[in-house]
Amino acid sequence: MGDSSDSRERRDGRPLGEFDLIDRFFGRAARAGRTEGGAVALGIGDDCALLTPSAGHQWLVTADMLVEGRHFLSTVSPRRLGHKALAVNLSDLAACGATPRAFFLSLALPRVDEAFLAGFAQGLFELADAQGIVLAGGDTTAGPLNLNITAMGEVPAGQALLRSGARVDDDVWVSGTLGDARLALEVFRGTLSLSATQFEEVRLRMEMPEPRVALGKALRGLATSAVDVSDGLAGDIGHVLKRSNVGATLRLADLPRSAVLGAMPEELQRLCLLTGGDDYELVFTAPPDARQRVLEAGRAAGTPVYRIGRIDEAPGLRVVDGMGRPVQDVPQSFDHFKS
Amino acid sequence: MGDSSDSRERRDGRPLGEFDLIDRFFGRAARAGRTEGGAVALGIGDDCALLTPSAGHQWLVTADMLVEGRHFLSTVSPRRLGHKALAVNLSDLAACGATPRAFFLSLALPRVDEAFLAGFAQGLFELADAQGIVLAGGDTTAGPLNLNITAMGEVPAGQALLRSGARVDDDVWVSGTLGDARLALEVFRGTLSLSATQFEEVRLRMEMPEPRVALGKALRGLATSAVDVSDGLAGDIGHVLKRSNVGATLRLADLPRSAVLGAMPEELQRLCLLTGGDDYELVFTAPPDARQRVLEAGRAAGTPVYRIGRIDEAPGLRVVDGMGRPVQDVPQSFDHFKS
Repeated sequence: MGDSSDSRERRDGRPLGEFDLIDRFFGRAARAGRTEGGAVALGIGDDCALLTPSAGHQWLVTADMLVEGRHFLSTVSPRRLGHKALAVNLSDLAACGATPRAFFLSLALPRVDEAFLAGFAQGLFELADAQGIVLAGGDTTAGPLNLNITAMGEVPAGQALLRSGARVDDDVWVSGTLGDARLALEVFRGTLSLSATQFEEVRLRMEMPEPRVALGKALRGLATSAVDVSDGLAGDIGHVLKRSNVGATLRLADLPRSAVLGAMPEELQRLCLLTGGDDYELVFTAPPDARQRVLEAGRAAGTPVYRIGRIDEAPGLRVVDGMGRPVQDVPQSFDHFKS
Repeated sequence: MGDSSDSRERRDGRPLGEFDLIDRFFGRAARAGRTEGGAVALGIGDDCALLTPSAGHQWLVTADMLVEGRHFLSTVSPRRLGHKALAVNLSDLAACGATPRAFFLSLALPRVDEAFLAGFAQGLFELADAQGIVLAGGDTTAGPLNLNITAMGEVPAGQALLRSGARVDDDVWVSGTLGDARLALEVFRGTLSLSATQFEEVRLRMEMPEPRVALGKALRGLATSAVDVSDGLAGDIGHVLKRSNVGATLRLADLPRSAVLGAMPEELQRLCLLTGGDDYELVFTAPPDARQRVLEAGRAAGTPVYRIGRIDEAPGLRVVDGMGRPVQDVPQSFDHFKS
């Protein structure tokens, strides 16, 4: 950025600095986006962003911090990274049934890298626009690469989907397919090889997760609990079971998987399905008499949903095979300070 | 944390991981704090935090990311760092006249360091409790040390203090004193030495800034614009002037300073007062006929306030000395990608 041939260099000869940087790549946010219902009255450019809540609604807020080598690889394209940084937050909002409204981006960058920022902003805003969420503020600083997004959404008061509502005999459902992102990670790790086509398919799942926002909204008043699968199915459903004071039995054969994953050895499939992480599908519970409506909600949201098990009284998670026999050694979930 | 003598080690023998970590140091947030007016209905432990807005209010949201060596030195005590990480966000809320409600903490840590976390949490919660703001969620991950806080507050609709409201002939005011934090930084940099007592005094200003929350609230309906001094007076008032389409003339002699700074050479004083940064005082404007009420607001908030200049029509910032002569070379503000 110190390159004096840069046509955007400030007229006073100083290199582009923090304020120019914000303005240049993220300044469009200043044009105070107005989203359906809730409104961002004032975006970037003041000490705070000013948000006007919709009458009769509650806010849902989530934060995710992404670090290179842990949440994304250095090989990811900036555009996909911009998508993913927002997608993982939207996935949390989706798990609560929220309508996305506004987000705040904090970026630490080792240096001002225009190509990186341009790509990152492109991926970020493409997803933001598609989901009707507005960049309303944030922070930029020099430092080891770090991306933090805090995202906010709204639900009509009392209608948020929580982890604590699962009841005995509820069905357990999951959206989409599980495990592809983990498969891609194993290829990057060199423990596995796939054809170029297969790799591109699962890599897309890892790098461009699709947050299930429409499904989350369609499940309001229908699902008794929900969680998004970020650390792996076994671990994430574990939070629901603990908070709801129940247990669950999942049928391994019913866990939805892509054709690519379905062609892998059984043990690898099990690992990817149960502990894969980075799936960003929704796992949720609903009473058996709501089955038809759940399927309709999935259709309305354009997201396939599958019944994969049942909530029972005995605490803990059980997984059974096609013969109803318990699967031993259900792997644990991914933990950022353990792996 | 892998020390097997740790009595809090999980019974399954695995070391404490991410979820335990959150629970142990920040879990008190899960006891869903209820603050005056607005409420956090559900804190840490779900995909999102659930916040209930107060009727007729707007939300103000700000984010600040802190990186070692840039926003704090490795020598700072964890407790003071916990204080400061929240204080800089509260200062942004204060500049908008907001009542603090909830904040979200994202932490990247090179390793699980219990002493660090215990001290950090102590400083964080001491300030949070004093200001009535609740930790409602966040994220933790392994990675180069990085602290991001996104903080939210409320104001009655339409009463937020903005940068855009300064009018010609308004007085310019500032709270407290300016420049001490910069003085401390210069000692750390080795360009200056102070007595132990003096150093401890200015170091406290650098490491334990006191956000002017009560003053910000007292200025609702009174100040025409406000900004907090984080990057230095000259730069921060510059944002107000630009957004308000006005200029200003400040009287150097009227800029409030501590006894320690007042004993320094003129040139150093000027540098610290105008571009010091890390002051976290409020600079605000108000019409001349509001002088008495502004002084009363300061008294009510327990924060001294001083008139330091006037808003005028000609764009830009002018600083004059005791004889009314222009001070040349008003230094620029600190910029994270330039210094």
